[in-house]
Amino acid sequence: MYPLANFSAEDTPIVIGIDLGGTNVRAAALDPAGNILASFQMLTRAHRGPTEGLARITDLIQRTLAACSQTQTLGIGIGSTSPIDRSRGTINNPYTLPTWSNVPIVAPLAETFACPVVLENDADMAALGEYWRGAGQGVANLYAVTVGTGVGTAAILDGQILRGRDGSHPEGGHQVIDPSGPPCYCGSYGCWEQLIAGPNLAIYAQQRLAEFPDSELWKQCGYDPAKLDARMIFAAARHSDPLAEAVVKRTANYLALGIVNIAHFFCPEVILFTGGVMTDHDLLLPQVAATLAERSLLVPADQIRLLPAALGGEAPLIGAAYAILQELNLVESLPR
Amino acid sequence: MYPLANFSAEDTPIVIGIDLGGTNVRAAALDPAGNILASFQMLTRAHRGPTEGLARITDLIQRTLAACSQTQTLGIGIGSTSPIDRSRGTINNPYTLPTWSNVPIVAPLAETFACPVVLENDADMAALGEYWRGAGQGVANLYAVTVGTGVGTAAILDGQILRGRDGSHPEGGHQVIDPSGPPCYCGSYGCWEQLIAGPNLAIYAQQRLAEFPDSELWKQCGYDPAKLDARMIFAAARHSDPLAEAVVKRTANYLALGIVNIAHFFCPEVILFTGGVMTDHDLLLPQVAATLAERSLLVPADQIRLLPAALGGEAPLIGAAYAILQELNLVESLPR
Repeated sequence: MYPLANFSAEDTPIVIGIDLGGTNVRAAALDPAGNILASFQMLTRAHRGPTEGLARITDLIQRTLAACSQTQTLGIGIGSTSPIDRSRGTINNPYTLPTWSNVPIVAPLAETFACPVVLENDADMAALGEYWRGAGQGVANLYAVTVGTGVGTAAILDGQILRGRDGSHPEGGHQVIDPSGPPCYCGSYGCWEQLIAGPNLAIYAQQRLAEFPDSELWKQCGYDPAKLDARMIFAAARHSDPLAEAVVKRTANYLALGIVNIAHFFCPEVILFTGGVMTDHDLLLPQVAATLAERSLLVPADQIRLLPAALGGEAPLIGAAYAILQELNLVESLPR
Repeated sequence: MYPLANFSAEDTPIVIGIDLGGTNVRAAALDPAGNILASFQMLTRAHRGPTEGLARITDLIQRTLAACSQTQTLGIGIGSTSPIDRSRGTINNPYTLPTWSNVPIVAPLAETFACPVVLENDADMAALGEYWRGAGQGVANLYAVTVGTGVGTAAILDGQILRGRDGSHPEGGHQVIDPSGPPCYCGSYGCWEQLIAGPNLAIYAQQRLAEFPDSELWKQCGYDPAKLDARMIFAAARHSDPLAEAVVKRTANYLALGIVNIAHFFCPEVILFTGGVMTDHDLLLPQVAATLAERSLLVPADQIRLLPAALGGEAPLIGAAYAILQELNLVESLPR
């Protein structure tokens, strides 16, 4: 049924992994062991419309195949910025991909490349990649938290993505951490994302900057508080700047509360951290671990390993390859 | 390997489900379709020690088998008050079962009855029972919340109990809902349980009783605030007593915040409610549904069905039977 038979003996069968984001789209060819053989990246240019976008993705896949001297792939896995509808194979994300409302992507690629195609949320694909080849390798109960511009979560249970009703993607970044906290675009108040995402760190520092006339952050932002960002705050915290330290401590505290909840809902073996804010994980995770040990006596929380993710930007590509290999029943069980 | 062959043609093969609680222990014989053919209950009398306790459970099983004119069972499923160690088959709960520290229960029963035995948390068994035969029948992504003296949670994903590392039982009742809330015995502050469990409703009402000299609750508790309980509060709320209404509104609000988080972590199809406090679900769930629709725009939360559980006290027995049938590979896939 699938074109495995089309490969001659000297060919390495390959799968294609795609990471479709608001700015860039990237395609990689991987062998069934998860090694990236070739990858290409282009600007997404979503605003030019889904027809052009789909043509760009098709071109990208063809270039990637050609780089491996191939014309065929076993299948294509796509990790996309959400919302998506995985059962219908459509992307419905006019927020990050302007003009892309209900755009079919699975069916046209399946027809063009005569192979099966799966579509998943990009955070799920990244977590799956870490499960297959990264810091969560073979972990039966794996949780991943991305803290960047927003906060995303993914759970991989026995190698399967945890999905909600109708295949929906859970959004642990919008758990309520402080009911008296700031309003969120999701309709709620005091969401985790509103308390720990990069832009929110900057907003909090801006609000308190006047209290700290000697703060290094004034210089870092060129005396324009609107230019403050999370990176500057972490850099200043490394120089023991009191305001920056206060912001980092507050962030670690709210990060820890969310992790306490994840520990109680999932008791995962490993929680992986990724995203821009977590680049400075060494300034955050010790406090998270301490809070977790203190506030989670009913679950084996002190045994949860808190680790930075290992695969960086390649995680969604590798996860997308794993997802299509799962679909093709070509995944071997992982060592535990 | 299992004693299926020992049953003569006219016998109905049966499984035994056990519900082991701090006060009572109950055993039921069920046919493989989940019908309870007979059940017996005794006081647990845990304080008399695990040896006597095990003898009582053995006796209970024998009586249940005899009531079905049987001497054999395909297997035994036990839902027990936690903490338990399901992989070692031991109960380690000196809190609810005084003297029961690291008590093997699976091995001795397996030997006595020459059949496989599985041990699980009682909340998980109850949720599994509802999945098999109750209000969550065949629901792919089912979440159960028990609000009584404490708050327990269970997730059944594709018919399997969600477990944490080393088989641990997640404790969603200890998610942090209000970081400035009251301290909890689990080491944390502002846990869900501290805000919505029955005794905590009573404590909050006691604290405010002096403000409401005309409250019906004075009469309900015989003018002794220490005797107030959740049942009295719900009864008074049905008569529009202002204090009782305030307590119920506060409870519904905190219940809703926890459900908002469950919606974001799991996006379940159905959330089932059980336990003493949820007897009055009609006074609580409408506000939960309204909050959920308002505060969960990123997940399909408005489609989550919030339902009272259907099986009452029989749920853990039926779930325990299902768990052992799963172990025996005798479970047919459920209609969706």
